[in-house]
Amino acid sequence: MAKGIYTIGVDYGTNSVRAVVVDTRDGRVVGTHVFDYPSGDQGVLLDPKQPHLARQNPADYVEGLRVSVGEALKAAERDPAFSRDAVVGIGVDTTGSTPLPVDARAQPLAMDPRWKSNLASHAWLWKDHTSAAEAVAITQTAAAHAPELLAPIGGTYSSEWWWSKIWHCLKTAPDVFDAAASWVELADFVPAVLSGVDDARHIVRCICAAGHKAMYSDAWGGLPPKSFLARLDPKLADLRDRLYDKAYPPGRPAGRLSGEWAKTFGLREGIAIAMGGFDAHYGAVGSGVRPGTLVKIIGTSTCDCAIAPVADEIANVPGICGIVNGSIMPDYFGIEAGQSAVGDLLKWWVEGVCKGGDALHDELSREATALAPGESGLVALDWNNGNRTILVDTRLTGLILGQTLHTTRAEIYRALIEATAYGARAIVERMREYGVRIDRVVCCGGIAEKNDLFMQIYADVIGQPMLIAGSPQTPALGAAISAAVTAGAASGGYDDWSAAQRAMTGLKDKRFEPHPAAQAVYDELYAIYRELHDAFGGVPGARPDLGSLMKRLLTVKEKATLPVLDPAATI
Amino acid sequence: MAKGIYTIGVDYGTNSVRAVVVDTRDGRVVGTHVFDYPSGDQGVLLDPKQPHLARQNPADYVEGLRVSVGEALKAAERDPAFSRDAVVGIGVDTTGSTPLPVDARAQPLAMDPRWKSNLASHAWLWKDHTSAAEAVAITQTAAAHAPELLAPIGGTYSSEWWWSKIWHCLKTAPDVFDAAASWVELADFVPAVLSGVDDARHIVRCICAAGHKAMYSDAWGGLPPKSFLARLDPKLADLRDRLYDKAYPPGRPAGRLSGEWAKTFGLREGIAIAMGGFDAHYGAVGSGVRPGTLVKIIGTSTCDCAIAPVADEIANVPGICGIVNGSIMPDYFGIEAGQSAVGDLLKWWVEGVCKGGDALHDELSREATALAPGESGLVALDWNNGNRTILVDTRLTGLILGQTLHTTRAEIYRALIEATAYGARAIVERMREYGVRIDRVVCCGGIAEKNDLFMQIYADVIGQPMLIAGSPQTPALGAAISAAVTAGAASGGYDDWSAAQRAMTGLKDKRFEPHPAAQAVYDELYAIYRELHDAFGGVPGARPDLGSLMKRLLTVKEKATLPVLDPAATI
Repeated sequence: MAKGIYTIGVDYGTNSVRAVVVDTRDGRVVGTHVFDYPSGDQGVLLDPKQPHLARQNPADYVEGLRVSVGEALKAAERDPAFSRDAVVGIGVDTTGSTPLPVDARAQPLAMDPRWKSNLASHAWLWKDHTSAAEAVAITQTAAAHAPELLAPIGGTYSSEWWWSKIWHCLKTAPDVFDAAASWVELADFVPAVLSGVDDARHIVRCICAAGHKAMYSDAWGGLPPKSFLARLDPKLADLRDRLYDKAYPPGRPAGRLSGEWAKTFGLREGIAIAMGGFDAHYGAVGSGVRPGTLVKIIGTSTCDCAIAPVADEIANVPGICGIVNGSIMPDYFGIEAGQSAVGDLLKWWVEGVCKGGDALHDELSREATALAPGESGLVALDWNNGNRTILVDTRLTGLILGQTLHTTRAEIYRALIEATAYGARAIVERMREYGVRIDRVVCCGGIAEKNDLFMQIYADVIGQPMLIAGSPQTPALGAAISAAVTAGAASGGYDDWSAAQRAMTGLKDKRFEPHPAAQAVYDELYAIYRELHDAFGGVPGARPDLGSLMKRLLTVKEKATLPVLDPAATI
Repeated sequence: MAKGIYTIGVDYGTNSVRAVVVDTRDGRVVGTHVFDYPSGDQGVLLDPKQPHLARQNPADYVEGLRVSVGEALKAAERDPAFSRDAVVGIGVDTTGSTPLPVDARAQPLAMDPRWKSNLASHAWLWKDHTSAAEAVAITQTAAAHAPELLAPIGGTYSSEWWWSKIWHCLKTAPDVFDAAASWVELADFVPAVLSGVDDARHIVRCICAAGHKAMYSDAWGGLPPKSFLARLDPKLADLRDRLYDKAYPPGRPAGRLSGEWAKTFGLREGIAIAMGGFDAHYGAVGSGVRPGTLVKIIGTSTCDCAIAPVADEIANVPGICGIVNGSIMPDYFGIEAGQSAVGDLLKWWVEGVCKGGDALHDELSREATALAPGESGLVALDWNNGNRTILVDTRLTGLILGQTLHTTRAEIYRALIEATAYGARAIVERMREYGVRIDRVVCCGGIAEKNDLFMQIYADVIGQPMLIAGSPQTPALGAAISAAVTAGAASGGYDDWSAAQRAMTGLKDKRFEPHPAAQAVYDELYAIYRELHDAFGGVPGARPDLGSLMKRLLTVKEKATLPVLDPAATI
């Protein structure tokens, strides 16, 4: 058996860290291990007095690195072709924005016994929403004094992002803020750990986190100007000097494996540590993203990623979370959008309202599959958790319309899936409207793999075949691809991203083609959705004809005599 | 014990007929019996091929009369003060519009073996909806050629009403139409039976059915002119000659008890048979309706009745089902409105969607009682079965808005109750706007008696105390009151309706007072409801601010820190 060349991808999720050892010739996973964070509630530190607080213990990150990579390597060794000497690089992807304060030696404050008991010293997990007031103030200040800062991030700064969280720390835990030599995104922290960085000034920063979450851009010389930060708080302006001047796209190494970690893992010292990145972005890489491809990572919420050549000079797209040069792959704009509740919306209906579990999910899915498009007479807005794209408004809520006394919970279940599909179509249309080419949609995540009804509805609503990524672990695979490219062809990896993706990624055979008849019905229903979307979303100039809307839906319902979708026909 | 004077009320419902023997001195029921119709599905004849068809077997009516009155009298005899000789009259109330074809001898065609197997020869139950196309054509024809006909019935002729049904019979069962010497409302049929009428031309017609369902008015000389009916079909114009010229308010006898029925019941021959009437109208009488009182009969749907002195010259009220001189009590306009789904809306949610039974009704009601007004952040439209008043539009559907991922089924349950309360307030406001005085609301029906949360919400939303009728059987009691007035003081009854109502009706001690704080919240929520109502209801000139609507609801939700309602405080 020919000897392979291997890289490792390490995926830091919300509740666990997963390591995969990947054969760079074909993307095959030869070893994997998942480590559940031991601290808090499934890895999340909570405070009963502050329901919006969500933190993580950085010690879990380090221990998770040691265990997950160590065990994945052990598992890989069951493959006789594998050898630890043939591992040429490690890539890391993480949740984000998940910033943590570090001391001058790049050690997390929370790992210092003096600070450990203070939750502000830990990592501020992406879904920590304690900083809502700061986000509003940042948006307002930027809109008034530096609107250019908002353009690449869709016009609204989020409470989930870097500056909101650091400012909130300054306001509520000034001792922690003062003790921090610097702050670092989890995506940059782990590569720095692997590289043995012991000076906070030497942490290498990825443009993925910097550009999407910290308002970093070459256009204004990196992070926002001190003059802007001083309007928020002079101490934030001071902090800027202790952060970083430059952030880098993937491909360039974030470091080299330190002697200590090389010994721990039995790997060669000095192998490439890839630039860190967010899970969704590396998930896009692992799903084979390329110009014209939209990757949809469908989970509790959805993240949509696309890339466009820098040469195309894509305009800023209103309502799109972020367009950042080099955030997904070098020489491309990384374009990120998302929906705030997708799997969560179905979970709410099935578990929260109908009080069922997996069996009811299956039952409603079966019943909903037997319905023709439009047959329910329902249309819903997918805003139970606000709208991330294209309205960028958390203060929106759900809507279901068209109920009769005969409406069933399966019909509502289907209407909620359809609502998320309409939301997905709104994103695709907005991207296209501003010049982003989309001619291929690749989906990944549990829903994409398991829920055929969901995927068929998406194909019919969006009017594109829905393809499924070949790997069930696309973020870790993407990180491993990044490691292979960072290692370079000379080390047995790749010099070229496309070549690496061609070799290491694939698609499942199963795909979902749009049915023309269903598409026609969904075109009508999408138009109704957009009337509601624009009216309740406060889109200027919206002119809905609400007085006829229920009647039009009834007409669609009455016409809905299409044959029932046959999932077997979707292959 | 002083001897009493008694009357009998007979209430023809959808599934059964109930007779009550009432002491005219105080309205006390001394004997009662319920007879379930034996034919069809709980008394309703269905046709699997025609889902909108609902008929009844007239033989059930006659048998039901014999058994229910006979058994109620037997039960009354357990009271030693009662004697059959002291019964001075019988009143009848029924569902409607429930027309049936009769032969020249006033016998139902369906009781003739030649016709029995033809469903068109049976009674066309109020909820038969086979005549939707005819209703639309009648409305359009009247709007074009005789708009005055539509004014007293709210502007839209219904598929549930007299002419729609008879015309549909003419179109689909012309042999039945041709064989019918006349057609008669159930409300007029039963008094004619009791009176031994054996000539269809002698059936006495009540203005209640004629005015509300058959477009009868003194203003155009009774039933619609032949010229109008001929536009629908010349045979309908011919039929007019075989129907009736004059209809009468209650108070005047529809007949006198025949010798045969007197013998059957052991009653005196010739006692008064009151004018028939619809259940809701006699329910209003039995609830103590008077000028300024709105009676709400709250069941699966709701019927609202009020009266206004003829001298007040109430204008036609747009969107109100009917305003008919003498339809409830003589010398008053009878004003009827209604909501298409009230109990049915809660039943849909609890049983249809949440798949629960009585226990879940109780559980959700308990949980919903613990919520403060506005706390759910939800607002709903109560249109799952269309809107009867004030939009008169069956092609409207339900809407629920304001859901988050934390919205519970109890919150939705409460929002649906609130939606029906907003619908009820819209009716009250419309009536007041057109000069109908309402300073007292009396409720009856199962929900009014059993669901305290429901009644408290109505008090808070409408801003009026909710009173509960003293009798659980107000329609039968109303019919018995009518019989007492028809018999007159000379026979031991009453010459005066007010005196009869004062003596024979009452209120329960329990009443529900509006809480000012809750009222203030509901004023805000009702304004939001009306924005949605007018926008989706197609009200000309509606100018909703939908772009801010969800945010306003969230603000109401955030303010909703009112103390939880204490049902004990509502006494």
